[in-house]
Amino acid sequence: MTTANAYPANQTIRTIGILGGGQLGMMLAEAALPLGYRCVFLEDAPHCPASLYGQVFTSEQLDDFVAAADVFTLEFENTPAKTVAWLKQLSDEGTKQGMYPPPQALEVAQDRLSEKSLFNELGIQTVPFKSVSSEQELQAAAQELGLPLVLKTSRGGYDGKGQFVLKTEADINEAWQALGEAVTGKGNLTPTPAPLIAEGFIDFSREVSIIATRAQDGSMRTYDLVENHHHNGILAKSQAPAVGTSHLLPAAKSAIETLMSHLDYVGTMALELFVSKDAAGKDTILANEIAPRVHNSGHWSIEGAVTSQFENHIRAVVGLPLGDTDNVYPSMMINVLGQYPNIEEVLKIDGAHYHTYHKEERDDRKIAHVTLMPNDVAALDQALAALVRALPNKMGLES
Amino acid sequence: MTTANAYPANQTIRTIGILGGGQLGMMLAEAALPLGYRCVFLEDAPHCPASLYGQVFTSEQLDDFVAAADVFTLEFENTPAKTVAWLKQLSDEGTKQGMYPPPQALEVAQDRLSEKSLFNELGIQTVPFKSVSSEQELQAAAQELGLPLVLKTSRGGYDGKGQFVLKTEADINEAWQALGEAVTGKGNLTPTPAPLIAEGFIDFSREVSIIATRAQDGSMRTYDLVENHHHNGILAKSQAPAVGTSHLLPAAKSAIETLMSHLDYVGTMALELFVSKDAAGKDTILANEIAPRVHNSGHWSIEGAVTSQFENHIRAVVGLPLGDTDNVYPSMMINVLGQYPNIEEVLKIDGAHYHTYHKEERDDRKIAHVTLMPNDVAALDQALAALVRALPNKMGLES
Repeated sequence: MTTANAYPANQTIRTIGILGGGQLGMMLAEAALPLGYRCVFLEDAPHCPASLYGQVFTSEQLDDFVAAADVFTLEFENTPAKTVAWLKQLSDEGTKQGMYPPPQALEVAQDRLSEKSLFNELGIQTVPFKSVSSEQELQAAAQELGLPLVLKTSRGGYDGKGQFVLKTEADINEAWQALGEAVTGKGNLTPTPAPLIAEGFIDFSREVSIIATRAQDGSMRTYDLVENHHHNGILAKSQAPAVGTSHLLPAAKSAIETLMSHLDYVGTMALELFVSKDAAGKDTILANEIAPRVHNSGHWSIEGAVTSQFENHIRAVVGLPLGDTDNVYPSMMINVLGQYPNIEEVLKIDGAHYHTYHKEERDDRKIAHVTLMPNDVAALDQALAALVRALPNKMGLES
Repeated sequence: MTTANAYPANQTIRTIGILGGGQLGMMLAEAALPLGYRCVFLEDAPHCPASLYGQVFTSEQLDDFVAAADVFTLEFENTPAKTVAWLKQLSDEGTKQGMYPPPQALEVAQDRLSEKSLFNELGIQTVPFKSVSSEQELQAAAQELGLPLVLKTSRGGYDGKGQFVLKTEADINEAWQALGEAVTGKGNLTPTPAPLIAEGFIDFSREVSIIATRAQDGSMRTYDLVENHHHNGILAKSQAPAVGTSHLLPAAKSAIETLMSHLDYVGTMALELFVSKDAAGKDTILANEIAPRVHNSGHWSIEGAVTSQFENHIRAVVGLPLGDTDNVYPSMMINVLGQYPNIEEVLKIDGAHYHTYHKEERDDRKIAHVTLMPNDVAALDQALAALVRALPNKMGLES
């Protein structure tokens, strides 16, 4: 009678292979299924969040995964570039129907030095930075960029890991002891040996991000700027749209469009930015990093935008026209870290949308998010206060 | 590492058992999973739409289905009342945590005579009607109610099946030949023998419906009135909110709240209404029928309301507080019947949301729906025209 295997006759892409099966893969699948696409996942944790929405293959079952899908994408930016390059090659040969985003986007995103160098080459401003391959070079960087400065591995590291803040010259040796092994690749800090990156400290008034999607025909759709608040290096809150940033939107939009076009990007991408002052005291944006995938600071778009970042990514990957990215209502996304709240307390808040990731509780782990989108915008602060009361881990959000 | 089997410690309801696995069950599961609930389905078609979101049990596996779930609901109003009564009993005995809606709601909804009688008992107006168990009674009904009239089976039948419109006295014998066997239960018209119902014809200006959800604590949330257009007895289009109906909302809201409270209802319910004129020439509403479940005329609420009819049904069934039912944006839902459109043409329309049911194409079968919610409300008519151009089955929507 009915069959969940029924496709329209002209649909050549039926299954999307997603590298990674975490919450981002899960939310991509939530967007893909209603459009008529199945998803399969390459992920070594068989009970990963995405497993509720499609079959999971482990890395040992790579060939079966590839056989099961028509087109490929990723949800995890530290996906081995080699796998991505291979899937791209299969697509170029016509065996498969595409690997999006392209390998070059991943390569840039996986290396902070290449990334910031590319930003500057394309005329997109960043904080001042230097490559560091020895303690002497760190000393020289401290001289040139001034102190404090942040020393980071150029590859690997996320959510604040693999970083060292140097406040005085006395910190140089300790910083080198902590991170220097990344240069030789002897420790577990990075996947491959690579120079460190020293970044000058700048005063910034806030952190914002811009998310956009680029289709296979080169057309692009950009979401509103979002204001992000971090706690211990982890995203705590995103507010969309970022209040009072319309004067910054053209530059941010131009930066992400320039990057996506340069990289021949297909899919959703995020660009993290600092809002700072230029020499003349005018607001300016400095690019920090890209995420070549759907991004935590875009989760609000499930309810808050006409078309979500997840649906637009899927549309791009399967070659469909992109959807409207306009804001429906001002909204606020809060990450749930480590411990689940009492869902009853959360859902008592009018306009609260709860998204669990079906993961076990563990310190500082992202296990769910809540998007607040009260019908009465004036109720947003009150809704946030009620939500923070309900969260076991308040992530610095108490006022 | 991660596990899709992780629940917060205090969550006693983990799995919802849904009687039926069609598109309504599928959309209930889409709403349930992000809240942290799994769904299993009782459905004899193993590849039903809902099978993408949870395990399907056939009626021969009823015991396994019951063992797998903590609480029960339904998506199909012709679910055997016996099964529902048994699940209610298990819940009353404490073996299971609930069966919602309650059996009495299903019994009323499954019998047009009981249903309209209840409406009148509760002071809710209907068209005039009579019970008909013989050709003589049909003759008497034609005399009393006047012609034309509609003769219907009181049990079974949907989407315009099991109905006969009598225009003149000469039609009486043919109508009786067509439907009379329902009285004795000899044919395939109804599940059990039952009198027919003869309904007087009334002039109505439009068909509207109201949807509401009632929680276990008796609190209720009501959606805006929706205007419905049918084609050949099948819903073609729902517009939310129905333009210019605010003067009718209090009576409609009161009618559905009265019904839900009387039935001790838990979950989402729809009430179909005709807008007619009273003796004084003032607009009035006449109740046609209830659907004791989520309803096709509420699909717009996935995007168009703060909380969808599906999420509110799930919240009610698991005992959570209900969400805001306010309209986010005016929206229009169009059913896709029989043949899939070119999805590219559909998604070119800004603000078009596509929901396929993963069913094989078959004449007049509901296989998908599209909700139009353009950011610019003035673009709604234009969006509808573009969508109708893209639909193989235009369902009388061409202007």
